[in-house]
Amino acid sequence: MSAKKRKNIVVIGGGTGTFTVLTGLKKYPVNLTVIVAMTDSGGSTGMLRDELGVLPPGDVARCLVALSTQDKLMRSLMDYRFDNGKLKGLRFGNLLLSALEKTTGSFQSAVERASDILRTNGRVIPSTLDKVHLMAKVGKRIIRGEEKIQMTKMNGSLEYLWLEPVARANPKALVAIKNADAIVIGPGGFYTSLVTNLLVRGIPHAIRQSRAKKIFVCNLMTKVEHTRGYSVARYTAALEKYLGRPVDIVIYNNKQPDAALLKRYAREGDTLTSWDDLPKEHELVGANLLSKRETTFKKIGTAGIEASLVRHDSAQLAALIARIMKIEKNGKK
Amino acid sequence: MSAKKRKNIVVIGGGTGTFTVLTGLKKYPVNLTVIVAMTDSGGSTGMLRDELGVLPPGDVARCLVALSTQDKLMRSLMDYRFDNGKLKGLRFGNLLLSALEKTTGSFQSAVERASDILRTNGRVIPSTLDKVHLMAKVGKRIIRGEEKIQMTKMNGSLEYLWLEPVARANPKALVAIKNADAIVIGPGGFYTSLVTNLLVRGIPHAIRQSRAKKIFVCNLMTKVEHTRGYSVARYTAALEKYLGRPVDIVIYNNKQPDAALLKRYAREGDTLTSWDDLPKEHELVGANLLSKRETTFKKIGTAGIEASLVRHDSAQLAALIARIMKIEKNGKK
Repeated sequence: MSAKKRKNIVVIGGGTGTFTVLTGLKKYPVNLTVIVAMTDSGGSTGMLRDELGVLPPGDVARCLVALSTQDKLMRSLMDYRFDNGKLKGLRFGNLLLSALEKTTGSFQSAVERASDILRTNGRVIPSTLDKVHLMAKVGKRIIRGEEKIQMTKMNGSLEYLWLEPVARANPKALVAIKNADAIVIGPGGFYTSLVTNLLVRGIPHAIRQSRAKKIFVCNLMTKVEHTRGYSVARYTAALEKYLGRPVDIVIYNNKQPDAALLKRYAREGDTLTSWDDLPKEHELVGANLLSKRETTFKKIGTAGIEASLVRHDSAQLAALIARIMKIEKNGKK
Repeated sequence: MSAKKRKNIVVIGGGTGTFTVLTGLKKYPVNLTVIVAMTDSGGSTGMLRDELGVLPPGDVARCLVALSTQDKLMRSLMDYRFDNGKLKGLRFGNLLLSALEKTTGSFQSAVERASDILRTNGRVIPSTLDKVHLMAKVGKRIIRGEEKIQMTKMNGSLEYLWLEPVARANPKALVAIKNADAIVIGPGGFYTSLVTNLLVRGIPHAIRQSRAKKIFVCNLMTKVEHTRGYSVARYTAALEKYLGRPVDIVIYNNKQPDAALLKRYAREGDTLTSWDDLPKEHELVGANLLSKRETTFKKIGTAGIEASLVRHDSAQLAALIARIMKIEKNGKK
């Protein structure tokens, strides 16, 4: 298949869920672009923001690793976290992006340069190049910063979210959205990885205007802090509130995970996303999307939050998206 | 010229002088190998040694940059020093090597991997993979660590130098020395970049046994702390004491620099190396080796010591070595 005929797939997100989507999709003959959330304020990324005044590198670094065609060692290097002394907790991939930002003079150039070094199969585009923070009004409280918001139990009293100061869209993100054949939103931390991209001025409008097929990949689980008890329908409606129009297709999981696994989640108040309540007037694709590979709990992410054991299977999810978009897997692999 | 016929040139050193030699020689069709001092204990390197327990990355990183065929930005990235917060003073190139050492599990693998990333034209070999410190007996005092030794005024009362614990040679260094057609020692911090390599067990013996032409590039200047008033003959004799045999050829500068320049040095007690007193029974090559490009003082090096204004010209020095070794410059260049 010639490069000219390749379909343009834009993935919107930032965290672990996006890593999964990209890992699957990069094996297909598509032009892959990921638009990445820029509000992370925790852990290694938060330290670099505070100390160097740089843009948040963490989610961008993870996406670069997902798209890298380099060998395992190079990816391990990017993910390496220093574990001693003053450097403790800092991730090498984040340091690389921040040092490149300082030497090139722009985060955009830093990302492009890091893409060269990692030989990525696809482009990584920060949703905004403005230095912004995610803000939330929860009841009468105003909470500043993604890290704090992530840990705040909203109990249904989230009034609204915004960015401070106002974030202007990265022009490259708008062009990618305009030229997309498909826009895949999710899965991912619902407010902190997905919605936060839709708070950037110009992005929801560009998505609404784009002729691309808009695909929402619904989260497998609900999080007690932010999306307690959400069904597929409720997740979809919440997303569409920020998007300003309905998506075209909703992909959701309809396979029950192991009961013992769910029990562990239930201890925290997290539950399986119910598919008893599905959105109306949408094209729906339900399937078994569960990964069989995750079997142990581990600490991940900038806030050191425990990762979900229940995860999307990257190959299965990519295959579904490819089928929807009528993309055939490259015979040559 | 086919790769098989290329001459094997081994450079021994570690600091700024070695950078100059490599920068010049890498433009010739030779198999270039640099054996690098592993006793640096100051600045960014010292911080990483102390905090992470790694081998000293600084000199190795500088040599990798000298041999890199990547563009200027990549070299700026390697040399980038963080200037804020907890990272202040740390050089990115050093962090890269230390993170690679942690992820690959060995400093040797880290160096090879960094060579790939930087696409070096030549090999960088740490003289030892043991964690050692340079020690000096000066009068009745014992001084530990290269950084401290660098700042100690010896006033001719240096008794002897050694490494602690005993450093075993990197086997790759011994093989390179054995197969060398030429071994170039210097220029560089005399005790801290040159002699320190000769304190590694096995290295002087290997040099003595090698059929290579042994070339000493004498320092342009004397340093009041360590080599006060040294002539070319005295430098050569001091080196040969640690080497255990005479070198074959001594290259020295015989051009007087600008008087105003020398005056600035004289304030610190540093003087031009005198060529009135030349070593006997050696092949001698005297020439104008002064670089015309260095015109301003700047802070360099791990200890923040002021750099010499009087510097070797890399092209001129490489051309002399090439002439001695009957190497023609690549016609295509």
